[in-house]
Amino acid sequence: MEKQKAFLPTAPYKGTRDFYPEEMRFRNWMFSVMRKTVQSFGYEEYDGPILESFELYLAKSGEEIVQRQLYNFMDKGDRHVAIRPEMTPTLARMVAGEVRNLAKPIRWFSVPNLWRYEQPGKGRLREHWQLNVDLFGVNSYRAEVEIILIANAILENFKAPKGSYQIKVSHRGILDSFLNQTLALAPEKAHSVSKLLDKKSKISKENFEEEIKPLLSNPDKQLTLIYKYLDTNLQTIGDLEGIDPSSVEFIRNLFSDLGSLGIKDQLEFDPSIIRGFDYYTGCIFEVFDTNPENRRSLYGGGRYDNLIGLFSNEQLSGIGFGLGDVTFKNFLEGHGLVPKDLNSKNAVLIPLMEDKVFPEVLKLAEELRKEGIGVETMLEPAKLGKQIQTAEKKGYRFLIFLGESELSENKVQLKDIVSGEQSSVSRSDLISILRKSLLG
Amino acid sequence: MEKQKAFLPTAPYKGTRDFYPEEMRFRNWMFSVMRKTVQSFGYEEYDGPILESFELYLAKSGEEIVQRQLYNFMDKGDRHVAIRPEMTPTLARMVAGEVRNLAKPIRWFSVPNLWRYEQPGKGRLREHWQLNVDLFGVNSYRAEVEIILIANAILENFKAPKGSYQIKVSHRGILDSFLNQTLALAPEKAHSVSKLLDKKSKISKENFEEEIKPLLSNPDKQLTLIYKYLDTNLQTIGDLEGIDPSSVEFIRNLFSDLGSLGIKDQLEFDPSIIRGFDYYTGCIFEVFDTNPENRRSLYGGGRYDNLIGLFSNEQLSGIGFGLGDVTFKNFLEGHGLVPKDLNSKNAVLIPLMEDKVFPEVLKLAEELRKEGIGVETMLEPAKLGKQIQTAEKKGYRFLIFLGESELSENKVQLKDIVSGEQSSVSRSDLISILRKSLLG
Repeated sequence: MEKQKAFLPTAPYKGTRDFYPEEMRFRNWMFSVMRKTVQSFGYEEYDGPILESFELYLAKSGEEIVQRQLYNFMDKGDRHVAIRPEMTPTLARMVAGEVRNLAKPIRWFSVPNLWRYEQPGKGRLREHWQLNVDLFGVNSYRAEVEIILIANAILENFKAPKGSYQIKVSHRGILDSFLNQTLALAPEKAHSVSKLLDKKSKISKENFEEEIKPLLSNPDKQLTLIYKYLDTNLQTIGDLEGIDPSSVEFIRNLFSDLGSLGIKDQLEFDPSIIRGFDYYTGCIFEVFDTNPENRRSLYGGGRYDNLIGLFSNEQLSGIGFGLGDVTFKNFLEGHGLVPKDLNSKNAVLIPLMEDKVFPEVLKLAEELRKEGIGVETMLEPAKLGKQIQTAEKKGYRFLIFLGESELSENKVQLKDIVSGEQSSVSRSDLISILRKSLLG
Repeated sequence: MEKQKAFLPTAPYKGTRDFYPEEMRFRNWMFSVMRKTVQSFGYEEYDGPILESFELYLAKSGEEIVQRQLYNFMDKGDRHVAIRPEMTPTLARMVAGEVRNLAKPIRWFSVPNLWRYEQPGKGRLREHWQLNVDLFGVNSYRAEVEIILIANAILENFKAPKGSYQIKVSHRGILDSFLNQTLALAPEKAHSVSKLLDKKSKISKENFEEEIKPLLSNPDKQLTLIYKYLDTNLQTIGDLEGIDPSSVEFIRNLFSDLGSLGIKDQLEFDPSIIRGFDYYTGCIFEVFDTNPENRRSLYGGGRYDNLIGLFSNEQLSGIGFGLGDVTFKNFLEGHGLVPKDLNSKNAVLIPLMEDKVFPEVLKLAEELRKEGIGVETMLEPAKLGKQIQTAEKKGYRFLIFLGESELSENKVQLKDIVSGEQSSVSRSDLISILRKSLLG
């Protein structure tokens, strides 16, 4: 028992995940669908170091958030560094560094791992992976058209049914003018009211009113306006006094272009969505899972006008979104969108039946690999039944049996694990049969 | 000028690299060739968190190395954590955690980023990426056959000429028996002598002898034996008194099987290679660049018998190697093995010639994407020359011009940027032409 105590634990660090081959296949599959989607729109992948200077995050967020949520420490040269909690500061630093040389529009994406010091819980992990998609250098609403097209194309490429998600869109100009003009709130109160609007769907009407009333100078009138605001649609929002007409027109143009591309039913104007009050400066959007058991925000983003302002005097407007792996995996599983054959291998395993044929087994394997066929070979003889079990456990499609008698006849026994069929095949036919079955 | 000073720097953290799309394409290309190679042998990808407990590294290396080279800190819950400097401890932890459930042999690979606190210099960076390939559960020399086959296949799949690299192989049993039996050294002195053998090729003969003599009890006789040892080959090594015959036979079997698979000229027995004295327990190998300007170790590995011993009573023998991106990039560039078209895009850019055709441009782009063709569209009208420049700068192969006159005739103008040819193409022919040119 004493010896047992000395063993190190095999669990990963708190709040993180190990990706065994099965989980890794899922992660690779999920992000490869996303990569192909964004690449089909001309987006190029970038990456940066996982450590950045602490001040890069301090500059954008407040000291308190940063100290509480950020993995940060002093390096051995007394530099204050942090593990990236989000990709945008790295992106801004990189774009700013080459802003004059990069061809516009800049279309970039990345799939970083990000760290936050969280108390782990359902859907809250300390390390997660996130697709980041950003477009710089287009000022008109057409950047929004493209970004929402991409956000929608990702879901279509996962074969998500149209009713399984909803894309909610609004504009900071609409919210700001409502708070500042329609409600005539002072800036501090406007900020608090916007936070309450953001969390309204999560609390009761009584709690909402109780919390909001102290912020209002004329609660009866202002509450009526707030309910009216939340109840507007794209046709009626412009009728509300004080709402910025150019923001309304922006959203109308966006909806019109997206509608002509068939994106209509899954699109919804929702003046209550907020997303990072201090961060976004224009259009904002958020994709929601409609599954009643998982009705939450899947991903979202928006336009930010001064991203590189911390690094440079240059002006460059950007729009982008981030999509985390944990929530999205729940979405895919909840809607049954994970392919059933993710863990099967379109490849061959060759058991070792007799020790002396080992070099011949390797030669055959090399021959097949040169044709693009994946081959795993057993390296030591073992009971055939056990070797077949291994092939099944590892998800192989075919087994090839090669013993001395097969060698002398220039044949192999080929077994299709899926159909159960086994047949004697000449060496010359083997490659064409496998190519046809495995590589299409 | 005061405002300038307030800007944050755009350089990445000391000793790290930003991967702009050009560098990222290279990294993705390089590791995709490696991934395909190891997957063709049935290896499966895994990954773990970049933070691990500090004691995971302390257990394997000494306190001093760990404190000097390791990025480590206390987290907010007073856990002592470290950013991974190598993948093997994570691998060992994960394998140990599931050792009874995993189908053997276990064939795994990963491509982690790793961190070491180095003073940055040529080829020494604080963050680098590394292919890790490991095979567990095969005790015979045939695991070595496969691992060296893979190490060689990687180079072949990069089209490395045979003379551009050399694979040097030895066995810890040969070195140990030489130090303990042939030279009859005490363990501590044996360790120091092995370190000197390792660095012999980097220092002068005089320095080597000066440093080694104090470690020897009978310098004249022992030095003669050392030179004899270093001069042996696979035929003569067994003649040296005291050398472990089973280790010699192991290497001979290995060379025989690899030879029958055509791996002969690039393979060399070299009793001077050491690689991590405290780490490997059996066969070791190292791949060298033969380029005189870059004559250094590219990658290497070997067998370790007690990898999971820190976590469990189970016995599991493993063999593996690690391959870092920085040295390997130098190799590929030094031998001219980087494809010239890495930065060109087999895809289409559609300039926006007239504002009002914008929705039609998007519809055409969507049509092409559904056929698997990548399309970037310009979102705002600009001078045609500037838009063509953008397409060239971004490396596109084709331009499609779609204006009102083309729309009314149901045609487009298709320009091949590589050949310079431009022609009028009907919408119905466009897809088949592009599919043929771009997707083969």
